[in-house]
Formats: sequence, structure tokens, C-alpha cells
Amino acid sequence: MLKEITMQELDPAQFISEKVTEIRNAVGEGTAINALSGGVDSSVVTILGHRALGLRLRSVFIDNGLMRQGEPEQVVALFAKMGVTVEVIDARREFFEALKGITNPEEKREAITQTFYRDVFGKIVRESRAKILLQGTILTDVDETVAGIKRQHNVFEQLGIDPQETFGYKILEPLIQLRKDGVRTVGKALGLPPDLFARIPFPGPALSARVIGEATPERIETVRRATTVVERLLKQTGAFQYLAILHEDRVTGMREGKRDFGQQIEIRCWESTDARKATPTNLPFELLRQLADEIVAEVPGVVSVTYNITTKPPSTIEAV
Amino acid sequence: MLKEITMQELDPAQFISEKVTEIRNAVGEGTAINALSGGVDSSVVTILGHRALGLRLRSVFIDNGLMRQGEPEQVVALFAKMGVTVEVIDARREFFEALKGITNPEEKREAITQTFYRDVFGKIVRESRAKILLQGTILTDVDETVAGIKRQHNVFEQLGIDPQETFGYKILEPLIQLRKDGVRTVGKALGLPPDLFARIPFPGPALSARVIGEATPERIETVRRATTVVERLLKQTGAFQYLAILHEDRVTGMREGKRDFGQQIEIRCWESTDARKATPTNLPFELLRQLADEIVAEVPGVVSVTYNITTKPPSTIEAV
Repeated sequence: MLKEITMQELDPAQFISEKVTEIRNAVGEGTAINALSGGVDSSVVTILGHRALGLRLRSVFIDNGLMRQGEPEQVVALFAKMGVTVEVIDARREFFEALKGITNPEEKREAITQTFYRDVFGKIVRESRAKILLQGTILTDVDETVAGIKRQHNVFEQLGIDPQETFGYKILEPLIQLRKDGVRTVGKALGLPPDLFARIPFPGPALSARVIGEATPERIETVRRATTVVERLLKQTGAFQYLAILHEDRVTGMREGKRDFGQQIEIRCWESTDARKATPTNLPFELLRQLADEIVAEVPGVVSVTYNITTKPPSTIEAV
Repeated sequence: MLKEITMQELDPAQFISEKVTEIRNAVGEGTAINALSGGVDSSVVTILGHRALGLRLRSVFIDNGLMRQGEPEQVVALFAKMGVTVEVIDARREFFEALKGITNPEEKREAITQTFYRDVFGKIVRESRAKILLQGTILTDVDETVAGIKRQHNVFEQLGIDPQETFGYKILEPLIQLRKDGVRTVGKALGLPPDLFARIPFPGPALSARVIGEATPERIETVRRATTVVERLLKQTGAFQYLAILHEDRVTGMREGKRDFGQQIEIRCWESTDARKATPTNLPFELLRQLADEIVAEVPGVVSVTYNITTKPPSTIEAV
């Protein structure tokens, strides 16, 4: 079942047709549900599912409060244009409650995963009486889970639960034989807009991975504002990845002529092909200066901005 | 007494002759003492004092453990060349003891000031039976104390103590009518080597001002090693000031293929005329990359290096 479909073997029209049939057969007269994050994988699954099931697929977007500026609205608008209604679930309170007091990056990830699968999406799935849960797992996720780098997306398998037996529904993973380039090819064939493929990678724990220390609503708002400036000014560079990180350390700054301990934002902008190795982008100094000036002007509480100049390794792409 | 001697009014030869006489008259047949930090002000006072008193001036260099690589040795060697013997007092234990557990920058400064004046140098002065204590206070220090920016160097006055009455000695401040440029002119006339004037500013609390959080011997050693790299590679730039800062935040790094939380060094390099306003130096990207590579190679535990791109204000020159 997990036999890879290589780029040479992939015939997108045939793949789509087979998967549509597979989903229809699995769901029969019932309904299905899926969670859309706005990333490429879950977007492709959403369109495939809607092509197979139409209104019998319920697609939900969980607003965890950790998204970038305007992200829930943008995802909903993008899919509305393609005739797909996406339901936004406001779960900000649940996620911030779960993140309260947590500073360890691993514990942060775990809190988000648990809140998503167990508390928020888990509850929606159980109440939906859907027969099938569609998931955007790709072959790389499976490989990375086996290698111990990533957690298995299918949380039930992790918990030793057979969802069919326990909850009465089955998990379907239509993209599990593809890698990222294959998913992109299928997405284009499905008519997904280029904007979606142009988006830079964004980590699973979203903006909570972009704050060192506790992810409070205030601190997430600070890094969200800085992220807006960084994405706006660095989009033109075509870099592999660019991001803003809010530090926990306080540094001395000046406000209205007086000493004041403020916050620091670190900018990273990477050149890379596969994220395994990366070098910082040689950005023009005027652009670096513009980034710093706009961030200190637009983000309350920030008095200092830095640019990361280390390679990966020994650094990593993200700080948390 | 505090009437400024402007650069136009200053006749260095006449100034030196007057101050030598003043010091000789004050000390009479007794002895004097002074603390040499290696900065321009205390260096000029040391040479003036020795010209007036010869071996009757005892000059001590307090090694607080917070100096840059090789600094005590360099200062001793520099003055030995000019025929002045400087006594090094190893007070590293006392300073690190006083700094233990302190993370607040103001408390750090206070701990260093108190350890210096009350415990270490204070004790030496009391035991020395010197009649006069020579201090390198300049007019700018007085102004800044009045404005509340800096603490008065004369700690006894702060404490409401008349040293003459309490300890039997008097404080003499031969440079108190001069500003920095005047002190430099007098220093050159005294034959101080150009190296001393070429040195970039270094803060009073030394490397403890270059670590965010607690200044332990290990953390000071980390920032000391990074400072050596930064000063070596940035000396050629002729920038106003350049420094390395050790952050307290931990960031994800990779060591031997595994995830590891490591430390971050921030580099700052400033263009400024008077330190009131400053802009980051437009360093060539290759030089930034070289700085990062050498720091991660030479400083154990560091996985990430950043360059500060903010202006002052709202930033400040130093972070702590």
C-alpha cells in the first residue's frame, strides 16, 4: 500500500480519478470530514474530497490563535473562490489554555498536538458522525516518523486505537504514496491557485514555534506583527524560508529619552534546497535596516532587531 | 573648581606641570594610591601620579574576572614599558561571589560597584595608609551624575562620607576639568602609546554587561571567547564600538546530527560620533559570515550568531 508513486510514474489526471473513486467507494452514502490547515497537503486533500463527495465532505479550519495575520480569512476566501465552503472553528481559548505556563519547546508541540487531536478536532469528528476522516499524510511524513524525526500524523495509531472499531469511522490518506513535488503536481492539476504553492513553509505549531518561552496571546500578537513585516519585505527575495522570532531575553532600549527594557525580534532568512543544510541569505543592508525600522515602528514593545548569520548546521531553520 | 578647561584653553604641558605640582603638594612626604582599569582616564592619572610621586604612588589593577582575554597582562606590560610597576590584585572570587544569582542589570552594576569600592579596593586603600587617593573622574562623569545617567565615581560622597575625616585620606581628581578629548590630548603629551587611545570603549561592569542573565565564570568565559573573535575581525573596520553579547535564551541547534539546545551570541557594531545616536555598521556579508563561522567553531556551546540591525534609539549601544 505504501509503494511510492515517483514523479516519472505520476499521471495526475489518472491519480485524481483513482483517488476520487477510492474516496467515493469508502464513504458510500455517508459523510466524511477533514481538517484544512491551509498548507499544500491538506488543501489538495480538501479539493480531492470535494470532487468526490461535494457537500458530503465537511472541511473545518481550526483557528488555534497561532496563525499569521488574516490567515483564517485568507484560507476561507481562497476555497470559497473554488466553490468550497470551509467552516472556521474558533478554538483560540482552548489552545492558549493548553499553552499556559509552558516554555519547553517539546512540551509546547505536545500541548498543541493533544489540544488539536484530543480536545478540539477529536470532539468535532466524534460528534460529526462522519464515516471517513480524510488526512493529508504524505510519504515523507511516514519516513520521518519511522526515523523518529516527526510524530506520526495518525494519532490514533500512535495511541494504539483502531478508529473504525472505537469511533466507527475510518481514516483515509489519499496522498500517502506521494512526496511534496507529487502533491504539488496533483494540486496544480486540481486547479489550486499558484499562491498556495508559492507560500513558504510554516511550522506545525505555527507562531508558538516563533516565540522563545511562553506562548501567551500577547506574545503571539507581537511575533505575528513582526511576521507580517518580515513576510511583506522578504517575499520579493524568493528565499527558501524567512521568519521572525520573539526572544524571551529583555534588552536595554530607550523610549522617550529614558532607559527601558524591551523585547528583541530575530529575523532569519534562509537559502536552501531541502532544508537539511541552509545558509543565511545575503540581504542588502538597506533592506535589513528597513526591516528593523519597520519592526520597531510597528510592533509595540520591541526595541531591538537582529539578523541571523549562522549556517545550518550548527543552527537550525527554526529556533524553537 | 569645576570650571571646564576647553580644548582651546588647554595647554597640555602647562596642565601637566600644574597637576604634578598639585599632586606633590597634596601628598607631601606621604604616599598615594590609585586603581588602574586600563582605560584612558585612569591611565592618564597613573602616569601623572607617577611623574609627581615616582615610587610613592602605588597603582593597582583589580582583576575582577570580567576582563577581556589577556587584558590584565596587557595593561601590566604596557605600563612596564613606561617604567611603571602595576600591581595586579586577583579578586575574581570576590566578584563572582557577589554576582551569584543576580540577573537584573542594575543589581549587577551595583554588586560590582560595591565589591570594588567597599570590599576589594576599599580594603586595599584602608590598609595602604596612603594619604591621597587619585581618581580619574572627568567632567562628563560629573555632568552625567547630575543628570542621573551615571553614578558618581566618588562613592564616598555618595555615601555622605568625608574620606579625610573617616579614613584619614583625601581624594584627588586631577582630570575633573577635562572632557574625553582633553584627556586624550594630555595622555599623548604624557607619552602614552597610541594603542591605548585606539581602544574601543569598554563598559564599567566589563564582560558582565555582555551577558544577559547571571554572570557566572562559565558564561563570562563564553562571551570572552566570542569577544576575542569579534575584536580581532572588526578592529579593521574602524567602527565606533563593536561587541559580543551572550543571550540567556536557548535556541535549537544541531550537534553531530542531533537536536540540541545551544546558546546564541549577538554581535553589535556601531557607527557613532558621541554614542548618543548610533547606526549599525554596514559590514560586508562575507565578514558577517566569517564572524559566525569562527564563533561557532571557537566558542563551545554556541550554535547561533546574530547581527544587530537596529539604530539607537530605540536600541542602546550595550544590551545590559
